[in-house]
Amino acid sequence: MPTVREDIRETLLTKFRQVREQTTRLCETLEPEDFVVQAMPDASPTKWHLAHTTWFFETFVLAQLDSGYVRAHADANYLFNSYYNAVGERIARDRRGLLSRPTISEIHRYRQTVDDRMLEAISSASGKALSEIQSVLILGLNHEQQHQELILMDIKAAFGANPVRPVFQDRPITTESKGRGAELRWVFHQGGLCEVGGGLQFHFDNERPHHTVYLEPFEVASRLVTNAEYLAFMDDGGYTRPEFWLSDGWAAKTNARWEAPHYWERRDGQWWTFTLSGMQKVSAAEPVFHVSFYEADAFARWSEARLPTEAEWEQVATPCPIEGHFLEAGVYQPMPAEDLGTGRPLQIFGDVWEWTASPYTAYPGYRPASGSLGEYNGKFMCTQMVLRGGACVTPQSHIRPTYRNFFGPASRWQFAGIRLAR
Amino acid sequence: MPTVREDIRETLLTKFRQVREQTTRLCETLEPEDFVVQAMPDASPTKWHLAHTTWFFETFVLAQLDSGYVRAHADANYLFNSYYNAVGERIARDRRGLLSRPTISEIHRYRQTVDDRMLEAISSASGKALSEIQSVLILGLNHEQQHQELILMDIKAAFGANPVRPVFQDRPITTESKGRGAELRWVFHQGGLCEVGGGLQFHFDNERPHHTVYLEPFEVASRLVTNAEYLAFMDDGGYTRPEFWLSDGWAAKTNARWEAPHYWERRDGQWWTFTLSGMQKVSAAEPVFHVSFYEADAFARWSEARLPTEAEWEQVATPCPIEGHFLEAGVYQPMPAEDLGTGRPLQIFGDVWEWTASPYTAYPGYRPASGSLGEYNGKFMCTQMVLRGGACVTPQSHIRPTYRNFFGPASRWQFAGIRLAR
Amino acid sequence: MPTVREDIRETLLTKFRQVREQTTRLCETLEPEDFVVQAMPDASPTKWHLAHTTWFFETFVLAQLDSGYVRAHADANYLFNSYYNAVGERIARDRRGLLSRPTISEIHRYRQTVDDRMLEAISSASGKALSEIQSVLILGLNHEQQHQELILMDIKAAFGANPVRPVFQDRPITTESKGRGAELRWVFHQGGLCEVGGGLQFHFDNERPHHTVYLEPFEVASRLVTNAEYLAFMDDGGYTRPEFWLSDGWAAKTNARWEAPHYWERRDGQWWTFTLSGMQKVSAAEPVFHVSFYEADAFARWSEARLPTEAEWEQVATPCPIEGHFLEAGVYQPMPAEDLGTGRPLQIFGDVWEWTASPYTAYPGYRPASGSLGEYNGKFMCTQMVLRGGACVTPQSHIRPTYRNFFGPASRWQFAGIRLAR
Amino acid sequence: MPTVREDIRETLLTKFRQVREQTTRLCETLEPEDFVVQAMPDASPTKWHLAHTTWFFETFVLAQLDSGYVRAHADANYLFNSYYNAVGERIARDRRGLLSRPTISEIHRYRQTVDDRMLEAISSASGKALSEIQSVLILGLNHEQQHQELILMDIKAAFGANPVRPVFQDRPITTESKGRGAELRWVFHQGGLCEVGGGLQFHFDNERPHHTVYLEPFEVASRLVTNAEYLAFMDDGGYTRPEFWLSDGWAAKTNARWEAPHYWERRDGQWWTFTLSGMQKVSAAEPVFHVSFYEADAFARWSEARLPTEAEWEQVATPCPIEGHFLEAGVYQPMPAEDLGTGRPLQIFGDVWEWTASPYTAYPGYRPASGSLGEYNGKFMCTQMVLRGGACVTPQSHIRPTYRNFFGPASRWQFAGIRLAR
Repeated sequence: MPTVREDIRETLLTKFRQVREQTTRLCETLEPEDFVVQAMPDASPTKWHLAHTTWFFETFVLAQLDSGYVRAHADANYLFNSYYNAVGERIARDRRGLLSRPTISEIHRYRQTVDDRMLEAISSASGKALSEIQSVLILGLNHEQQHQELILMDIKAAFGANPVRPVFQDRPITTESKGRGAELRWVFHQGGLCEVGGGLQFHFDNERPHHTVYLEPFEVASRLVTNAEYLAFMDDGGYTRPEFWLSDGWAAKTNARWEAPHYWERRDGQWWTFTLSGMQKVSAAEPVFHVSFYEADAFARWSEARLPTEAEWEQVATPCPIEGHFLEAGVYQPMPAEDLGTGRPLQIFGDVWEWTASPYTAYPGYRPASGSLGEYNGKFMCTQMVLRGGACVTPQSHIRPTYRNFFGPASRWQFAGIRLAR
Repeated sequence: MPTVREDIRETLLTKFRQVREQTTRLCETLEPEDFVVQAMPDASPTKWHLAHTTWFFETFVLAQLDSGYVRAHADANYLFNSYYNAVGERIARDRRGLLSRPTISEIHRYRQTVDDRMLEAISSASGKALSEIQSVLILGLNHEQQHQELILMDIKAAFGANPVRPVFQDRPITTESKGRGAELRWVFHQGGLCEVGGGLQFHFDNERPHHTVYLEPFEVASRLVTNAEYLAFMDDGGYTRPEFWLSDGWAAKTNARWEAPHYWERRDGQWWTFTLSGMQKVSAAEPVFHVSFYEADAFARWSEARLPTEAEWEQVATPCPIEGHFLEAGVYQPMPAEDLGTGRPLQIFGDVWEWTASPYTAYPGYRPASGSLGEYNGKFMCTQMVLRGGACVTPQSHIRPTYRNFFGPASRWQFAGIRLAR
Repeated sequence: MPTVREDIRETLLTKFRQVREQTTRLCETLEPEDFVVQAMPDASPTKWHLAHTTWFFETFVLAQLDSGYVRAHADANYLFNSYYNAVGERIARDRRGLLSRPTISEIHRYRQTVDDRMLEAISSASGKALSEIQSVLILGLNHEQQHQELILMDIKAAFGANPVRPVFQDRPITTESKGRGAELRWVFHQGGLCEVGGGLQFHFDNERPHHTVYLEPFEVASRLVTNAEYLAFMDDGGYTRPEFWLSDGWAAKTNARWEAPHYWERRDGQWWTFTLSGMQKVSAAEPVFHVSFYEADAFARWSEARLPTEAEWEQVATPCPIEGHFLEAGVYQPMPAEDLGTGRPLQIFGDVWEWTASPYTAYPGYRPASGSLGEYNGKFMCTQMVLRGGACVTPQSHIRPTYRNFFGPASRWQFAGIRLAR
Repeated sequence: MPTVREDIRETLLTKFRQVREQTTRLCETLEPEDFVVQAMPDASPTKWHLAHTTWFFETFVLAQLDSGYVRAHADANYLFNSYYNAVGERIARDRRGLLSRPTISEIHRYRQTVDDRMLEAISSASGKALSEIQSVLILGLNHEQQHQELILMDIKAAFGANPVRPVFQDRPITTESKGRGAELRWVFHQGGLCEVGGGLQFHFDNERPHHTVYLEPFEVASRLVTNAEYLAFMDDGGYTRPEFWLSDGWAAKTNARWEAPHYWERRDGQWWTFTLSGMQKVSAAEPVFHVSFYEADAFARWSEARLPTEAEWEQVATPCPIEGHFLEAGVYQPMPAEDLGTGRPLQIFGDVWEWTASPYTAYPGYRPASGSLGEYNGKFMCTQMVLRGGACVTPQSHIRPTYRNFFGPASRWQFAGIRLAR
């Protein structure tokens, strides 16, 4: 039915334009120099994110449509391939910050050229071709949304590593006015046989297959752990008492000399934190974040609670509307919980990612996609922990109850906080 | 009922003597110099194992019975505490190989003194006291059995790091005579709601609580992967094709330059391997072992199969008798599978530990023991993988279907092999 | 005599303007992004050099003249202090590449403001004040000239680390037209009691005191070692035969996998090298450079010769005119030796720095300057080797026969080559 | 003249027996386990020293005399070659501590066999053969004496790394009875043209050629720096004020957290030090030692003095008798200076090695020996500093005024102290 197809085509064109423009808009306040810096091997320069997401469309859409496709930038495949072994050799990850060239102007031209080609390709594709590229195109847009979050995380890392603490945006953060936040309640779930994993809506391969798990009854906290609660942990010797910590966590803490969440600084007896709006006083009612899994786990043990498993979290989250504080609000800082009296758990989506007790592994029967894109998720299923729910730097349309994010247990630069369970 | 108690007392006395003597017997062929060497930070000198297991009884039995207890060796608590923060400061793990003193003679005296005191304590304990120490005493004996295996693993590592490749025992290994081994069959399990975890018999805290899981139907291989099968993987580029490997595994392989299982050496076009009976030709029908989780996982992917989860493994293992090749046989090398026509999966217990696909995490509702012994297991529940089934260096009475061993995914010095699932 | 003072004032004003403008001119082809990159901890971003040299004048001239001096950039002292402990805390050397801010525009404004203040200060200083600051002002200009060379070295390192191999300047290098270069002759010196060290002309404190040394008779080569000669060393197994190498050199070579001079790449059976004019074929007659002391020493041993000591070099260099290929020529690449028949040794000044056999130590009776500037040279007098003669990236007016440059024996990014002695 | 030859033969036989027995005697108090430990990569196990010195005689004497020579231990060349590339592959230096086998009993047998062969070879050599091997035999004995000192240094490092602080010998050290020691005087030398380097007596190749240097007038201290003086430096912030330190020294100090000489420990407000006779209170009048070059240099700068150059030291030492506290005394700890009123500088020989300001480089015209023994000294002439005068762990017959010892500037486990100059 051609008319249906034309609807899809229009939707794809619109979505493509929106997502790509959203990415560019995130960088409006940056100076050319800012696009170059790589704060640490785990982070990437903004410029690299802009180019890599573009390379993705070239590699998995344009080059698939046209076997003689010539890239819009000669060195793109070497410079902007992230980790796809099947697509070829590439620059070492920790050397991305050495690339002053191509300049940001060249990268913008590269994006523009590829965008033009993509829009032309979508517009002119036959119905058959369109249906062939549709799924990878949607994957590419979701991939780009992931990098929107990474851009914000990584530029925060770059600015945070700079002693002058540059301000990414002047927009003030006014969470204090929101007051003390909501009281902690425990939300009960009776467990039993539960469904887990992606359904009909778009999802990544790591959310598949949809499957059944058996859960014991459990409770999760109605809101995220606040800075005030975390400060109580710190005041009670949280960072100096090994009994709360995993063995590896204690070693990581000791080696890296953690004494507070990442970005926190003590100035004149008061804790401050670096935000994308500059240095701010730590606000009691806001959710604590920029903590590692090890810190989240130690806090939970100190609280005589634990972190939820990802299956538990998913049961609780599934009925909740996907509402909260996301990238689109442009605040890039979580807000205190606000109890609207619905009885639902608060802050499930947005604000900060929530560490779970679940190592990142394959779901029963998982198979990665065939071809190069099979490297997208599967090969990282080891020694990482699952996080759920999205953050204030995640696009709202990108998140869902089944979404599985993952980071190493010592990582702290992502926007990750804590929800307790028991 | 006092008579019952006396039975228990006799059993404890007998078991204590047996286990302690077994440990000493393992070291009969060692020279004084051999007791000192620490091949790598993960391994410990034999001497240290002999002392640490003794320290365990002093700390958790004798010092509990007598608050004024004076240790049989002045520096024992600093030198021989492994990782119990609650028991005090200790020598750094990677410096245990610097301890030429106390000499092995002193360590033997230390063991003898503590054994005498323990036997006296068990013999003279009131019924009430006996019942109080009974569980920690049994824990201590199981702990000592773990270190019996570690002694063999670690002395193999020490001798394997020595260019002269010392022979631990002259006993020849005659597995070749056993022929080709058994054919691979797939053992089906219908899944569903299954029971997991320790029951009435002794088990470690990490096997608790007994709980329910839901499993999809699955199959496991009827026997372990053989050297012949692993050589086929190697010949097919197993170590040079990233598509089979987890991302971290590929990095580990590349950094450490793995090209074959640990202890394998190529001599004149033939693969040899270092065993506790000296260098041996790699035997086609024997199970492959001394592979990391990463290698096991890559082999499974190459085989278009996967590793079993620990819950799957436990379902299959529970009906099997605890028979196989264990430490008591004194061979310290796995044997080819031998099909006795029972229809049961082979090599489930003994031979080599089996990597599972399961990260080592807490069972639902897990709580570590209170007090210092709470550090026994729980604090290691991160970034490690579960192994099941025991090995030819595990005491037979030490293993059970619910037993959870764990190592980091890159570790290769333990006796670990591969069973496939799908 | 006031008129003399006014001459000095005019000279200082002119010299100050010239040197500062020369620095800015070096950066004309750079994009804003290029100013940020730090290729390795030893190198610095161009932006940092521009700011640090400015900070030097603020710290050691303006702040000395005015005890209430307020810096033209608030964070200058933390960001742009190189290594002067007496002047305060500073950013770690290896983190200079994280500074996207201050931007290059801000740095240019910073330079402009300080230049204005300096010119005003020089113009308006009383005769007494002028004579007080004269020597540190001249030191500051020499310091800035050192950083002109560093800017070229470091941007070469940054561009050389970029897989796209950016071209710093389009200017072609036409050394091939110069032919085979000059034959090697040996220049004899009878030795005996010789004078060493700086005289009346400006020199750094490490060239003091002027003193006497006793030398055995020696010969030095009439010109630098050529690429052709170095290729013969390589072809004769220079990089694979330990007998030519110092023990530390062999270890450095092995760890870093040196197989040719830095910046050399083999492409289709031909050696190419990265230059500030882009990739060029290695030219037989040009001096070899970007070699470490270890390589220079190994080459000398292979040649059955040795490197000259710095005292020997100075005897030979003192009568030579300070002519050659310097920064001012804008070529930034050494040229083949050209024998003009004067009988003098060739290429003594300019082209490439010459490694000597002399560790960098204090001359007899050396005392560093008092105050913060005492940290300028003296504290580096350990584990480095002396180089002499300047290079094609050294300003001509900066070099002299007594000038002592120094680098660690494994450093290769400076423009350093080889002259033999025996 | 045959009779002369027979005298030489007898002398060599006697000397050989004496030196070899001296080595064995040093190890009398060690347990078998002690022979295995390698405290750090720079140190070696005692067992290795015993074997390596034996390998030296096999390699450079027995195998030279008999081209079909079969080694007395099959793996000797791989295990006991130190650094002679020309003699073949060898075990990595930092893995010598993994060698529990060959056992010390085997090593003693290896020594005995080689000793027997050596004595037989010396006894039965023709006059011609004897004269051919005479120089390498004497080199081998001097080499063995170097390793006698290394055995004591390295076993001190091994015992010092053991928390139980084993006592190497029970012999008490009674330096306190010697009182306050001697006052510091300055010994003047007029400088001028001076002779440096080895003469007719045995010396290593690095002491050649004998040559002339020109020295400015100088003074050296009449005795070594004492612990009392060094404590004054420490009390005055010696370890916290960068102005006294070389840049690399400050970095080394900071990284390794030096706060006092090596082996010093603070206990109840008093400094103690680990000696080969166990823990001792730091004695005010004894020479400070186990300091690095960086500490010696910083102390000198704090004292407004400097370290002597090796040429200066040699001028002052040449007229002094070779008397002092040496290995033969069996004390292994330096003594307070005792002024006997001779006017001569004190403690020139023995007690502790004296750091000089001279980097270890080749003398003018230096050529290493031909053949494998050319690797003995020459290849280490980089990034090390010269020490002079011997120590209380040096055999008396091993030292001479021209003797050049050398260590890296951060090394602290050798018995090295400080003499000032100015």
